Amino acid sequence: MSHNSFGHLFRFTTWGESHGTAIGCVVDGCPPRIPLTEADIQPFLDRRRPGQSKFVTQRQEPDQVKILSGTFEGVTTGTPISLVIENQDQRSKDYGEIKDRFRPGHADLTYELKYGVRDYRGGGRSSARETAMRVAAGAVARKVLEGVTIRAALVCMGGDWIDVANFDWAQVNENPFFCPDAQAAARWEETLTAARKSGSSLGAVVEVVAEGVPPGLGAPVYGKLDSDLAAALMSINAVKGVEIGAGFAAAGFTGEENADEMRMGPHGEVLFESNHAGGILGGISTGQPVVARFAVKPTSSILTPRRSVDRFGAEVEVLTKGRHDPCVGIRAVPVGEAMMALVLADHLLRHRAQNPDAPSQARLPRN
Amino acid sequence: MSHNSFGHLFRFTTWGESHGTAIGCVVDGCPPRIPLTEADIQPFLDRRRPGQSKFVTQRQEPDQVKILSGTFEGVTTGTPISLVIENQDQRSKDYGEIKDRFRPGHADLTYELKYGVRDYRGGGRSSARETAMRVAAGAVARKVLEGVTIRAALVCMGGDWIDVANFDWAQVNENPFFCPDAQAAARWEETLTAARKSGSSLGAVVEVVAEGVPPGLGAPVYGKLDSDLAAALMSINAVKGVEIGAGFAAAGFTGEENADEMRMGPHGEVLFESNHAGGILGGISTGQPVVARFAVKPTSSILTPRRSVDRFGAEVEVLTKGRHDPCVGIRAVPVGEAMMALVLADHLLRHRAQNPDAPSQARLPRN
Amino acid sequence: MSHNSFGHLFRFTTWGESHGTAIGCVVDGCPPRIPLTEADIQPFLDRRRPGQSKFVTQRQEPDQVKILSGTFEGVTTGTPISLVIENQDQRSKDYGEIKDRFRPGHADLTYELKYGVRDYRGGGRSSARETAMRVAAGAVARKVLEGVTIRAALVCMGGDWIDVANFDWAQVNENPFFCPDAQAAARWEETLTAARKSGSSLGAVVEVVAEGVPPGLGAPVYGKLDSDLAAALMSINAVKGVEIGAGFAAAGFTGEENADEMRMGPHGEVLFESNHAGGILGGISTGQPVVARFAVKPTSSILTPRRSVDRFGAEVEVLTKGRHDPCVGIRAVPVGEAMMALVLADHLLRHRAQNPDAPSQARLPRN
Amino acid sequence: MSHNSFGHLFRFTTWGESHGTAIGCVVDGCPPRIPLTEADIQPFLDRRRPGQSKFVTQRQEPDQVKILSGTFEGVTTGTPISLVIENQDQRSKDYGEIKDRFRPGHADLTYELKYGVRDYRGGGRSSARETAMRVAAGAVARKVLEGVTIRAALVCMGGDWIDVANFDWAQVNENPFFCPDAQAAARWEETLTAARKSGSSLGAVVEVVAEGVPPGLGAPVYGKLDSDLAAALMSINAVKGVEIGAGFAAAGFTGEENADEMRMGPHGEVLFESNHAGGILGGISTGQPVVARFAVKPTSSILTPRRSVDRFGAEVEVLTKGRHDPCVGIRAVPVGEAMMALVLADHLLRHRAQNPDAPSQARLPRN
Repeated sequence: MSHNSFGHLFRFTTWGESHGTAIGCVVDGCPPRIPLTEADIQPFLDRRRPGQSKFVTQRQEPDQVKILSGTFEGVTTGTPISLVIENQDQRSKDYGEIKDRFRPGHADLTYELKYGVRDYRGGGRSSARETAMRVAAGAVARKVLEGVTIRAALVCMGGDWIDVANFDWAQVNENPFFCPDAQAAARWEETLTAARKSGSSLGAVVEVVAEGVPPGLGAPVYGKLDSDLAAALMSINAVKGVEIGAGFAAAGFTGEENADEMRMGPHGEVLFESNHAGGILGGISTGQPVVARFAVKPTSSILTPRRSVDRFGAEVEVLTKGRHDPCVGIRAVPVGEAMMALVLADHLLRHRAQNPDAPSQARLPRN
Repeated sequence: MSHNSFGHLFRFTTWGESHGTAIGCVVDGCPPRIPLTEADIQPFLDRRRPGQSKFVTQRQEPDQVKILSGTFEGVTTGTPISLVIENQDQRSKDYGEIKDRFRPGHADLTYELKYGVRDYRGGGRSSARETAMRVAAGAVARKVLEGVTIRAALVCMGGDWIDVANFDWAQVNENPFFCPDAQAAARWEETLTAARKSGSSLGAVVEVVAEGVPPGLGAPVYGKLDSDLAAALMSINAVKGVEIGAGFAAAGFTGEENADEMRMGPHGEVLFESNHAGGILGGISTGQPVVARFAVKPTSSILTPRRSVDRFGAEVEVLTKGRHDPCVGIRAVPVGEAMMALVLADHLLRHRAQNPDAPSQARLPRN
Repeated sequence: MSHNSFGHLFRFTTWGESHGTAIGCVVDGCPPRIPLTEADIQPFLDRRRPGQSKFVTQRQEPDQVKILSGTFEGVTTGTPISLVIENQDQRSKDYGEIKDRFRPGHADLTYELKYGVRDYRGGGRSSARETAMRVAAGAVARKVLEGVTIRAALVCMGGDWIDVANFDWAQVNENPFFCPDAQAAARWEETLTAARKSGSSLGAVVEVVAEGVPPGLGAPVYGKLDSDLAAALMSINAVKGVEIGAGFAAAGFTGEENADEMRMGPHGEVLFESNHAGGILGGISTGQPVVARFAVKPTSSILTPRRSVDRFGAEVEVLTKGRHDPCVGIRAVPVGEAMMALVLADHLLRHRAQNPDAPSQARLPRN
Repeated sequence: MSHNSFGHLFRFTTWGESHGTAIGCVVDGCPPRIPLTEADIQPFLDRRRPGQSKFVTQRQEPDQVKILSGTFEGVTTGTPISLVIENQDQRSKDYGEIKDRFRPGHADLTYELKYGVRDYRGGGRSSARETAMRVAAGAVARKVLEGVTIRAALVCMGGDWIDVANFDWAQVNENPFFCPDAQAAARWEETLTAARKSGSSLGAVVEVVAEGVPPGLGAPVYGKLDSDLAAALMSINAVKGVEIGAGFAAAGFTGEENADEMRMGPHGEVLFESNHAGGILGGISTGQPVVARFAVKPTSSILTPRRSVDRFGAEVEVLTKGRHDPCVGIRAVPVGEAMMALVLADHLLRHRAQNPDAPSQARLPRN
């Protein structure tokens, strides 16, 4: 069962509310003898941390992670790794006015209908603050994925897509948007400033790419790698769509266009002439880069009043004064990387269990 | 663990290869005392069955389902329901030439790399034939979902979208495409005929809508209804993208546009003024229709030769002479409905377990 | 979730009622390229089969297993293996009189209270007939456990224990009781004949031993090997107790007596001077033989009338005229072996996933 | 998958090592709106706490539990409940000498063989300290089990059984052994004092009884209540055997003796004339008290030197100077109660999901 856990062999469970004492997670199933300290995790949290530019929530959280278990003398022991971050800047008074009112497009209403109670402060459990623990767990997953490089970038904001010809990973850390296209970043700076000033918010699309993934990860037919990736990415707050490789564009292709033709390299390696499949065929990785994209809706916490209802069944107007992200898609970039890492680590262990002697590269003949 | 199982409380496991003796599934966790006979399942299989028009594979399979366990005197007993369909028209000789060659865009290669062995006849386990058992299991799930209506339609073929203004559920069964727009159906008839004659294939998009879903289905944060739906739909053969509600379009919205504003109805019911959320907020159903779409790539089994490689590492050309669907998206329509039903049934039971007294409608105040 | 499934990576799901059309199981997660045909499974079913001596039920079932999926040209493919046995000698008329009456000590009552419906013919789903599929699945598990020998024996019947000094595996197949002590077997012949003639039944204890188990199987603290073994053996029909190694006797030991002292062998192997632990310490296998015992109560289907109640709340007397085992413990012997194999196979895969380079023997230093 | 988690719908995951910073658990799936504060949990921890008499380890731990998430304004919210206890009296220097040596009968060796690394301080993850979190989680489970009373007692120590005729629950809290028989308690005082002084340790048997359990909990055939109870109790440190109801004694019964005959009470309730079944038939609760017993071996941490080996493959002698329990069975009493509560809470939710309208009492006719 998965309420608040994800993964099977490499499994993590998160807990905590936005304005509770702390948030945390338990990473279970990590192989032993992997060097791991807080210093392996903190840089990823720092990338995601709020308050770093005017384009993300101004909440100030140092987000210092502590490892409470599962390591000994700097290496993992194979036992559960408990990670925790104490909440500091909780400023709960900001949220009093949405205590009884439901923000349109927010989980306020559904938590009330389902549970009849909710920690309304800062969104409680439904807050994007939970994603800090995904990033922390993802940093552990990366340690399991030796030789795999996982990167993400924002490729569309407010309907404005990057120019793929300009795509440059080196640009991603040069602007506050994780944007791989310097020209697009310049445009977005203006657009998002305008949205922020007007109390609005914008949607976005994130692309995640994993290179160096061995072939064979995934399993028929409900343990498919793309099926688990879709679940993982769709579970991120505000995500409304997920695609693999060519994604929705594939619906407009012919069979000939869609086929990724293959040739042989000099050392028996399979060379693909394109990657519409996004590195996954039949639910199983091909050895090509695994490519996924997900759409993030604009945050529902905006300063513009919207028509809504309250707990008592009265019609009201709601606007949200708290500190929010004008484009939550930005901070979803490191979260997308983390989810990719978590899915791949789980599948790597699963694959190894059933196929211990499978090749780590797409070479033919197979063994 | 999910290799070949899906769901938790309402769980099904499928087995079988395209050209094996039979295919089947076990549905576990179905509540007792629900009337169920083969006649409840067969109509859904008949809708998905191959050989019904020139636009789907010409394989002739009666697809007669048998219930082998789990019912007694016409009702379910709470024990596992075993469903089986015998394979009849297996014509395996058609497949000899792809025994050692990998179709580009097909699971042939990845099964070989992962397992080092595969039943190549008709795609074996990776064949869309497996989806017959999803449809059968889905028919059982529908029995659990009293008051819920689940329908799907093809809304785009080969990049040609329907006109939403023409959307009419009554049209869906009036053409061989499950198309809700009579004008689009007419256009597609021409397009697909041309594609079929040229030995090509086309992609498509399917939309699934569930009406009458009670609020509260789903759970934070890895048991989200949309996360499970994404996994379910992405697990269907050839699917490359999934979206909920406004989906990728939400990436172009502002926060004001995206917000589904709410008013109160005369009996305390929450009325939404739009449904960009697709009936799900924070991973939990709102009581609005649950709306999902998924993109199906064109089948990789085409008559046009493509460059590829074989098991021995030689460069070859591949074309597929077997009987295939020029647009596999068509037969994915009943499969999409089935997956929606299976996810909802599982979540209904999960919700009931934790929240036995939750309201079945979105009314305020809650209880 | 486990209603009718057991295991995680090597997972099987059984279905079917005693007097339904067929019984079957799906074995999921079996590694590929393992030779497997019906001939690998049938001998184990033959050992368990009813009707082979006057001491087991006289129901005549050939119990011919068929493999419906998951193998190709005689080897496993890594996809789900579907096994089925058709029911033949169902003689349902024998069971009419317990249709509405609850046998004391039987699941009749609890199925009625839980589900409000049950297939009463031959016990339906609660019949020991289900264990045929455990034996079939266990035969597949054995193929995964290369180098591991799993044997079981009846060590106590009707309170009469074997003399451990006489324990001889070679005797087990020389008498109708799977008894390893020829003298005890001779005594039991008389006892059980008497019980059978008087319409009574007897309890028993089965011991299962697995030799050649590599160290390292199991995991802290809810994935312990002994915890899973306890679940597996307790799930067998009529089992009321499970113990590992010294078991309940350990409650009478001092710490000094209980400690299995260790010495080093000539090749770095750990030599244990006793095996009170039953091959498991801290939930993880030591490399010693894994030893478990389980207690089987006498069957509740007896010819002596017992006071009971019926579905309508009336007080009645019940006696069972069907063909039953005077000592169900006998046929539990191959079932115990199967469950041991299934647990070990699952844990072998789990261990391999997390610790791919762990040693296969208890040698020190470790690697 | 269950490495460090237990349960499905009411699921908990523990983490932490004996001498790490803290230990903790996450309880996931708890229904909402249940009053819960630390004060509901602390009394159960206090019962289990070390250092309370000379018969348990002298480690001084206040074991103050903190709730870090999952409640709001004193009630559960349906989100994961994070519980943590900081370790205080870690005195790690005591353990230096077993850093490289394996205590016979202890998990030291198997952790080394499996993982190649371990936190040897105080047993690390394999320490009974982990059971504090079971007790904490069990306290939450009790809140879900309204109307159910769960109690346990020590019924045998060092092979000396209580006299069942003297069984008195009121005695259990009147002696340092949780012994329900005042005379036995007096004897044990002497025995255990002698064992402690001689640096030895004793085994024990614990009996757990749950009254007020509704009928219908459990499921065929791998979701049986007794199967899950066996797994739960066998997962407690040092447990080597588990039995339900008559348990191993049932192996000596005839069918007539074993049958729990039934009569009808004045209000349609089923009255059982005995409870050899221990409240479970066919894996499903009958409504009678659920009765389980488990055998606890003597701790392997003793002052008497034992022959052993070390990490480097040398033969050594080991004795353990740390502060240990001369009879770990004593502190297993509250742990046994907790595991019973955790299993029942999980099954209550599972039962409710599939059978929402099942009766809460064993009455006939059923509804």
